[in-house]
Amino acid sequence: MDLNALRTANPDHWSKATAIRALTLDAVAAANSGHSGMPMGMADVATVLFEKHLKFDAANPLWPDRDRFILSAGHGSMLIYSLLHLVGDTQFPIEELKNFRQMSARTAGHPENFLADAVEVTTGPLGQGIANSVGFAMAEEIQRATYGAKVVDHHTYVIAGDGCLMEGVSQEAITLAGRHKLSKLIVMWDNNNITIDGPVTLSDHTDQVARFKAAQWHTIEIDGHNPEEIDAALTEARKSDMPTMIACKTHIALGHAAQDTSKGHGALTDPQQLTAAKEAYGWKYGAFEIPKDVKSAWEEIGKRGVAERQAWEERFDKMPRAKRETFNRALALDAPKKLSATIKAFKKQMSEAAPKLATRASSEKVLEVLNPIMPETVGGSADLTGSNNTKTGDLGVFDTDNRAGRYIYWGIREHGMASAMNGMALHGGVRPYGGTFMCFTDYARPAMRLAALSKLPSVFVMTHDSIGLGEDGPTHQPVEHLAISRATPNTYVFRPADTVETAEAWEIALSLKETPSVLSLTRQGLPTVRTEHKNTNMVEKGAYVLADADTKRQVILIASGSEVSTAMAARDLLQAEGIGTRVVSMPCMELFAAQDDAYRKRVLPGGAVRVGVEAGVRMGWDQWLLGERGKFGKAGFVGMDRFGASAPAEELFEKFGITAEGVAQAARDLL
Amino acid sequence: MDLNALRTANPDHWSKATAIRALTLDAVAAANSGHSGMPMGMADVATVLFEKHLKFDAANPLWPDRDRFILSAGHGSMLIYSLLHLVGDTQFPIEELKNFRQMSARTAGHPENFLADAVEVTTGPLGQGIANSVGFAMAEEIQRATYGAKVVDHHTYVIAGDGCLMEGVSQEAITLAGRHKLSKLIVMWDNNNITIDGPVTLSDHTDQVARFKAAQWHTIEIDGHNPEEIDAALTEARKSDMPTMIACKTHIALGHAAQDTSKGHGALTDPQQLTAAKEAYGWKYGAFEIPKDVKSAWEEIGKRGVAERQAWEERFDKMPRAKRETFNRALALDAPKKLSATIKAFKKQMSEAAPKLATRASSEKVLEVLNPIMPETVGGSADLTGSNNTKTGDLGVFDTDNRAGRYIYWGIREHGMASAMNGMALHGGVRPYGGTFMCFTDYARPAMRLAALSKLPSVFVMTHDSIGLGEDGPTHQPVEHLAISRATPNTYVFRPADTVETAEAWEIALSLKETPSVLSLTRQGLPTVRTEHKNTNMVEKGAYVLADADTKRQVILIASGSEVSTAMAARDLLQAEGIGTRVVSMPCMELFAAQDDAYRKRVLPGGAVRVGVEAGVRMGWDQWLLGERGKFGKAGFVGMDRFGASAPAEELFEKFGITAEGVAQAARDLL
Repeated sequence: MDLNALRTANPDHWSKATAIRALTLDAVAAANSGHSGMPMGMADVATVLFEKHLKFDAANPLWPDRDRFILSAGHGSMLIYSLLHLVGDTQFPIEELKNFRQMSARTAGHPENFLADAVEVTTGPLGQGIANSVGFAMAEEIQRATYGAKVVDHHTYVIAGDGCLMEGVSQEAITLAGRHKLSKLIVMWDNNNITIDGPVTLSDHTDQVARFKAAQWHTIEIDGHNPEEIDAALTEARKSDMPTMIACKTHIALGHAAQDTSKGHGALTDPQQLTAAKEAYGWKYGAFEIPKDVKSAWEEIGKRGVAERQAWEERFDKMPRAKRETFNRALALDAPKKLSATIKAFKKQMSEAAPKLATRASSEKVLEVLNPIMPETVGGSADLTGSNNTKTGDLGVFDTDNRAGRYIYWGIREHGMASAMNGMALHGGVRPYGGTFMCFTDYARPAMRLAALSKLPSVFVMTHDSIGLGEDGPTHQPVEHLAISRATPNTYVFRPADTVETAEAWEIALSLKETPSVLSLTRQGLPTVRTEHKNTNMVEKGAYVLADADTKRQVILIASGSEVSTAMAARDLLQAEGIGTRVVSMPCMELFAAQDDAYRKRVLPGGAVRVGVEAGVRMGWDQWLLGERGKFGKAGFVGMDRFGASAPAEELFEKFGITAEGVAQAARDLL
Repeated sequence: MDLNALRTANPDHWSKATAIRALTLDAVAAANSGHSGMPMGMADVATVLFEKHLKFDAANPLWPDRDRFILSAGHGSMLIYSLLHLVGDTQFPIEELKNFRQMSARTAGHPENFLADAVEVTTGPLGQGIANSVGFAMAEEIQRATYGAKVVDHHTYVIAGDGCLMEGVSQEAITLAGRHKLSKLIVMWDNNNITIDGPVTLSDHTDQVARFKAAQWHTIEIDGHNPEEIDAALTEARKSDMPTMIACKTHIALGHAAQDTSKGHGALTDPQQLTAAKEAYGWKYGAFEIPKDVKSAWEEIGKRGVAERQAWEERFDKMPRAKRETFNRALALDAPKKLSATIKAFKKQMSEAAPKLATRASSEKVLEVLNPIMPETVGGSADLTGSNNTKTGDLGVFDTDNRAGRYIYWGIREHGMASAMNGMALHGGVRPYGGTFMCFTDYARPAMRLAALSKLPSVFVMTHDSIGLGEDGPTHQPVEHLAISRATPNTYVFRPADTVETAEAWEIALSLKETPSVLSLTRQGLPTVRTEHKNTNMVEKGAYVLADADTKRQVILIASGSEVSTAMAARDLLQAEGIGTRVVSMPCMELFAAQDDAYRKRVLPGGAVRVGVEAGVRMGWDQWLLGERGKFGKAGFVGMDRFGASAPAEELFEKFGITAEGVAQAARDLL
């Protein structure tokens, strides 16, 4: 590249973009780690985006109607940190950049949404940002349809690299965006032809432009170092009635000795090469030094949106009060006041009616009463609507001609669904829930982890949660998936035993602000075990005594979900033999762990043998079976220690010994 | 559809294809569950494939040079079971079909490779079969280049549905196939425009033909009910020098009242509609009844390959003996005789040299000695070659001009890599291993589970296995991933402490025949703890006493991987205080659990407090900390109970208390 030509063609632009490159070089050198090349390659695109298109106000990074900027290629985090420093975001003084990748800095190795207001998304695991962006754009459409374009009217801009586009989840994302004509979604592809292992052609010959066209996107190809072309492309993209992909041909690590090489992708820390690059830029300043005129120019950019924001605030204030309140309540993730009373009334009714229902059907019943009072919920399923029971009558289907629809047919895209749900939650104003078979948490797993890390209250509705799924066989029967979700920090796993517990689990899930929930629900019918109404939300305690021993307590059976009624039947068998047996229902281990010692000891006192019952692996159970054991000192577990099989469900429970008699025998064996 | 026109146009074809449809209807009706529509829609394509193109011999389903047939749309399992019954596979008598989806039947709800010889792949989780097929085609290319086209020359045929193509992993698969010009891979897309939730257009508007073209595939569009078009397309596909996708326009549930509807996707069990469909076919036979002439015609098809197989056997016998032996040894998954001696010599050398190495680097050293003596290994990495240390000097890079290359640059496709590795292992003759960051087991997870379920000895090389990854931060730091892999049945998780244990882990992993391995390896350098050479493979025991208490044993520290040296340092601190401390290295919990009670009690006797040390979550540890505890009855754990952070590694271990002093203090607290 002829840097001189670039500089002289547009010196103002050049100095602004070069500030990003210089800060990137300096921060990576200081940290002695990081990724220099990507921010250096995409500095021109980002500069034009921020200078001329992105609607934002640096002093108010949480302004609800701001455009969203997502750095899907999260390893290039210095791009976003440089930009935020330059525009005057007070959370990013120069000290933060000097502390790049150090303990407690906001400038983490990859952008983390919970460290800074202006960082919209936690990215780094490739493909996630572009998949999140679909949720952002959908949330914007839904909110715009709900509140009107006067208060909701913004774009979602994404910078994605080759890595993002090679990940499979990007295909799920772009086909969803194409299907729904998410025209306010604009992806800028950093087409630099470099991956860590070498040139992209080492592993890929895909015609990305043709691929996006096949997914019904508008596409534009530009020189990613030409500010006029960048500006024109963004203008064109904003006018399109389709989502737009701008293929930006760039040079990774522009101007550095490592330009256009995979070395340039990583940390460029050689001091001489750093100096040489700055010289080539015509940048005469010291480390972390930005000349006043360049900083002022950038700060002006940071204030570009002030008037627009103020005008928005005036328009917002003119909205009817009820609408404003709902808008703000949803944004703050406050549950509606009616939630608690609604759940209580529902529980009372169910305790009396005592239906035999699969908990997936219980969940649908709960949603039928909750969705009408929580207009912020957005439901969906990955092509298993009838099986996941996620659709209720009032939601309407989100589509190109019904943007207010609150139900999304995600197609066979579990991963894309979960990532987009995260995007919706990050966008704010909506509360996403989505369903698939429990076994396919495997597909959604990268996004479910990010929901937990990013502190998003997404609700994953996972049905067919054991061998109770039956004939579809072991490919579809979860065995280890409860353990997987429970192993993940900041995740609540609810496995309700009946309709009442399902209602309690939903009440908690829809009240959480920073924790995702996994609802583990059955395919098969279960009797109501909570036949006595209680106002208290018992699931909130994690575990509780469902039925106590009639005589001296010798056995405690601890069970979750479908196995609670099995444990109750085992209790009948044991008590008939004079063996006093307590049944503890344990719908949420995480919440039980959070109770105080005294409560936990009341529920699980010593002096009795313990048997855990759950149609899954034992992992995670020992803390309750062994950790607080008393004088008997014996414990057992009835569950699965292998994959399941294809057969009718009842036969499978019989085969694997997860029956009342199997549980009773496990207890007898310990006595 | 005018069934009459179809029937009269080609009555011979019609009766053969209708036999599939009738058997499908009968079996699903008998099971009262399953998926009728897909086999009914694709019966014509499958009939022409088996009759005119697929190289196979029904009596010898394991003939190494057979064509592979993969039903990626695994829910349509009755297609494959019908075909196998019709061609005379002795594992599929009519009784098996009558037992569809019942306990212990070969005719499981979804095809399971371990239940029947002719079922190549376990499918059902959508997108997996098409992703596996890339591995099949690569393995064929590698074997052909190695042994010559006289003994290896076959195709891989895949039937994939809309669900397969919507899953992200399919994009990773087709771009890999296109990149490598896997011309012997032929995908037949069941283009029926129906998913469970409704028409495909409900969730997708992708132009699939354009998408495959963008990925450098040859594409053909046909009427999937016209046998001449099907035949011509398959002929054309076999001649192409690119992978070929044949878009087969079909009618799901052809001829049934539910034709072309999403109801037709599921179980069609209404007896009257069943009868009406058979009438419409002109099929006058009872349930599970196949007229003699039709069955004979199919059995002739089953024998089509006999002469070809015999000729192949003659050619195979003419290969040099050494080549034959290697071919057969690799196919049988027997480790070479030299393996054990090679590992022993390497261990001796390492115990003496006692290098300080990251275990990822140890792993590279091991591979440098193993790859030359195991020509069946095929290595690779998902764009982290230099970080995963998976490439050794002698492998050569697999490419269009080097089909014998044994190293694959998978690109940023963890899921596609793992699925293709499964395909390679299923194809046979090669032993795949592949690397990524441990944290991205999340992306590969659906395929890793299927490796375990399908009994495949794939080796997943997962480096950067804790907060020791450092500055990249929590998005890249595994915390729950050891627990996730350990929760999965039939999976060995190895977390070696140094170069010697790494060699032992590789020896086991490359000797396994039916179990996948996860190698959990560090980014950071570790001292050699096994400085005293032992011929015995200690990792094989799962856990063992690395250093015993010098004085009366009061403490047992149990650690894995990078924390073993931390535990050794803690032991020094404690023993200096007169507290006798044993250190147990536990590189593989699954193997330790498989030892007899006596050994386990020798390693973990009572009478001492226990502290587990691992830079991950506690889940999975309690069985060793609490399960066999003795009279002190106290145990603790030093590890992670939250996500990590972005900072230099040493500072993170300090911050989270995973240090010698932290471990020593945990022990002191218990005493």
